[in-house]
Amino acid sequence: MYSKLKAEVCSANKELHSLGLAPFTWGNVSAVDRENNVFAIKPSGVPYDDLTPDNMVVISLADGSVVEGDYNPSSDTPTHYILYKEFPQLNAVVHTHSINASSFAQSGRAIPSYGTTHADFSHTEVPCTRALTAEEVKNDYELNTGVVIVEHFKKKKLDVSSTPAVLVRSHAPFAFGKNAHDAVHNAAVLEIVAEMAIKTELLSDKYEAQIPQYLSDKHYFRKHGKDAYYGQK
Amino acid sequence: MYSKLKAEVCSANKELHSLGLAPFTWGNVSAVDRENNVFAIKPSGVPYDDLTPDNMVVISLADGSVVEGDYNPSSDTPTHYILYKEFPQLNAVVHTHSINASSFAQSGRAIPSYGTTHADFSHTEVPCTRALTAEEVKNDYELNTGVVIVEHFKKKKLDVSSTPAVLVRSHAPFAFGKNAHDAVHNAAVLEIVAEMAIKTELLSDKYEAQIPQYLSDKHYFRKHGKDAYYGQK
Amino acid sequence: MYSKLKAEVCSANKELHSLGLAPFTWGNVSAVDRENNVFAIKPSGVPYDDLTPDNMVVISLADGSVVEGDYNPSSDTPTHYILYKEFPQLNAVVHTHSINASSFAQSGRAIPSYGTTHADFSHTEVPCTRALTAEEVKNDYELNTGVVIVEHFKKKKLDVSSTPAVLVRSHAPFAFGKNAHDAVHNAAVLEIVAEMAIKTELLSDKYEAQIPQYLSDKHYFRKHGKDAYYGQK
Amino acid sequence: MYSKLKAEVCSANKELHSLGLAPFTWGNVSAVDRENNVFAIKPSGVPYDDLTPDNMVVISLADGSVVEGDYNPSSDTPTHYILYKEFPQLNAVVHTHSINASSFAQSGRAIPSYGTTHADFSHTEVPCTRALTAEEVKNDYELNTGVVIVEHFKKKKLDVSSTPAVLVRSHAPFAFGKNAHDAVHNAAVLEIVAEMAIKTELLSDKYEAQIPQYLSDKHYFRKHGKDAYYGQK
Repeated sequence: MYSKLKAEVCSANKELHSLGLAPFTWGNVSAVDRENNVFAIKPSGVPYDDLTPDNMVVISLADGSVVEGDYNPSSDTPTHYILYKEFPQLNAVVHTHSINASSFAQSGRAIPSYGTTHADFSHTEVPCTRALTAEEVKNDYELNTGVVIVEHFKKKKLDVSSTPAVLVRSHAPFAFGKNAHDAVHNAAVLEIVAEMAIKTELLSDKYEAQIPQYLSDKHYFRKHGKDAYYGQK
Repeated sequence: MYSKLKAEVCSANKELHSLGLAPFTWGNVSAVDRENNVFAIKPSGVPYDDLTPDNMVVISLADGSVVEGDYNPSSDTPTHYILYKEFPQLNAVVHTHSINASSFAQSGRAIPSYGTTHADFSHTEVPCTRALTAEEVKNDYELNTGVVIVEHFKKKKLDVSSTPAVLVRSHAPFAFGKNAHDAVHNAAVLEIVAEMAIKTELLSDKYEAQIPQYLSDKHYFRKHGKDAYYGQK
Repeated sequence: MYSKLKAEVCSANKELHSLGLAPFTWGNVSAVDRENNVFAIKPSGVPYDDLTPDNMVVISLADGSVVEGDYNPSSDTPTHYILYKEFPQLNAVVHTHSINASSFAQSGRAIPSYGTTHADFSHTEVPCTRALTAEEVKNDYELNTGVVIVEHFKKKKLDVSSTPAVLVRSHAPFAFGKNAHDAVHNAAVLEIVAEMAIKTELLSDKYEAQIPQYLSDKHYFRKHGKDAYYGQK
Repeated sequence: MYSKLKAEVCSANKELHSLGLAPFTWGNVSAVDRENNVFAIKPSGVPYDDLTPDNMVVISLADGSVVEGDYNPSSDTPTHYILYKEFPQLNAVVHTHSINASSFAQSGRAIPSYGTTHADFSHTEVPCTRALTAEEVKNDYELNTGVVIVEHFKKKKLDVSSTPAVLVRSHAPFAFGKNAHDAVHNAAVLEIVAEMAIKTELLSDKYEAQIPQYLSDKHYFRKHGKDAYYGQK
């Protein structure tokens, strides 16, 4: 069962590693099957080269329990769980510690949209959550990591469809996608956009470098939504 | 028809990707055939590994229409079109989102000539255009991207032969060349020159670091023009 | 004799090189055999590709003399020797000149813990020793390099188990581990953490970027110690 | 004739390229044969992959003329020529435009010795020459590039044996060595040292980061000269 889902998630985890976004066993990819109310995720601490579809772990969206799989799921599983529960439009989640995006997360700052590379991928800045409280860290830490993401998106009226990545303060990024490979793609673009943002700030004043909203709109909708005209039909 | 032109453009697009200057489907190369009044360009959104000479798209320089090809041309085609129309000496165009050059574009700054690596490739700074207006973005955005480049070159009396690259503000670089491979070479050199410029500014005052004009002239004309003596005859 | 120890140390030295952490002949790995009171270390100045288990050098922990091996041991051998003598819980040592960590060492600064990537690996900042005196450099320089590390750990009540790396001022990092491969892993993570710290400081105020202690505790103990729940059993 | 010299120079040029220090046709290596009063150097503008021992160019140290070879020698040949003439202890010269070292050259600054990675390779800072005058650039530019290097070394009482690299202002580095491969090695170490220096200055005050002279002496003489004890006998 779930063999297609597990194959997709396994392949996307390997792709994440081969793109250099997840050294060692860091980083994990999951994808959801809404019909069966489950998602599949990488096992915890297993090297990427050893991953096979069969050692992916399938989790119930009803209660977060393991439905299928012989391994412990990623320790970040409760974060993925709450994101799928709270964002019904969400299909896939990637977590990395990629260097440039994590540097923004460590600084507690959103990544401003400084140009069309950013706007091609996200319609907004890449937001950064508040810090978790001591209480939130102590109890259900991984679940609460998802809770602060959800809280931030609701407060700022953001949508994971048009804001495909978020930074958790003092921690690292999560990226979203239409499927597991799209989420990995967004995690990779995020890292490029973060490196460009660091260098843009070295070269100029950060307020003057902001992209005009009309240009951001143009690039975003050139690639996304019903009027997109990038690529082939 | 146009098989030699399509082969050259296909091979240059693949080279752009293998040099790391165009991750995913970003970036595109075109080259012109002045005799037949057409140019060939990469199809939109097709992965570089899937490109063959046959899926290049041939565009009329008379009116910008597709002359040959089964795919949608790059969404940046109107930019290439207007550049070929307005610069009769132009043979090939490359567009990338390379990280260091795009960081200068995002900062809205030209890349100053800080040394001989820059002067070997360009006789001037790498200029940065003004921002497009909301009106220019809304209507004929890609064409207007070319229009602001042309406007900048005319106002500053620049020539694409001796200023082989330009930055479009809040966006990214375009590079020019004597043929498709030369334009890719210039896009690659631009990225190195941009990285050196960022680091030069970290180390010193940007006004003191400017190359003397006589040294820039020496290096530029050592490699370019009738008195060049670099390389073999 | 010591064939298992020499095989482990040889393989870890090659891994260090293949991870890009030790160009040329820089960097060395050792591991201890407490039962036999010896440690094995890389020979001095031999290229990594030429290393075999047989040319590892085995050193007595009783007096630092060579017990087995045809080559001169690494010139840093006395540093490893004193660390094993003074830290009975220490199993393996790696020395590199990796670029980002060495830049912190050159600046004479500890690497602050700015996020969970750091906290997953170390429970404290990565400390930086004082400078060696002229006298300490003149006589028994390599031994004294270990002496200042030991002095720093004792003064600050640090433990090599939970502080798995240290910077020697004006010099470079040493990393520790449960075995040779774990020490190489820590040397690799250190380099990533150092790069993130440099970029975090470019983006924000260094005092505001400090990770809260409760989050550092959570991440460290999620991966280390008896209550760890990361990975498989 | 000169087949051993040409083979060494050819192989060192290819090594320079494979280390990433000379993209495209940038960079060149030469080595001298003092007995026969000639040096061999890379041909100008020929791709590294196409180099064979037979297309190296042999130059007379008596008058700078071509003694053997079908190609034009590197356009930087007169720089190499004057360096061999003026520094009788010099055996090999490498010129690159490596990014970090060239950024120091563009900023007009010497690379200070900030740590043992630098001291292992050079007993002094990596000096930076004065700018060439308009007159020096106009007439015999490449020869005068060597002249300002020689002038700087004489004025500062430096020796190419213990100061194995130099930056030419607004231009790029030259490195020296005991043979062609040693000079390439020094060019590679220079690039690492330059990157560390840039990052050290991001992290700390540049005066406080200077290595103490006694530590620089220790590391330099540990590896160089009659009392060296690094490596095998």
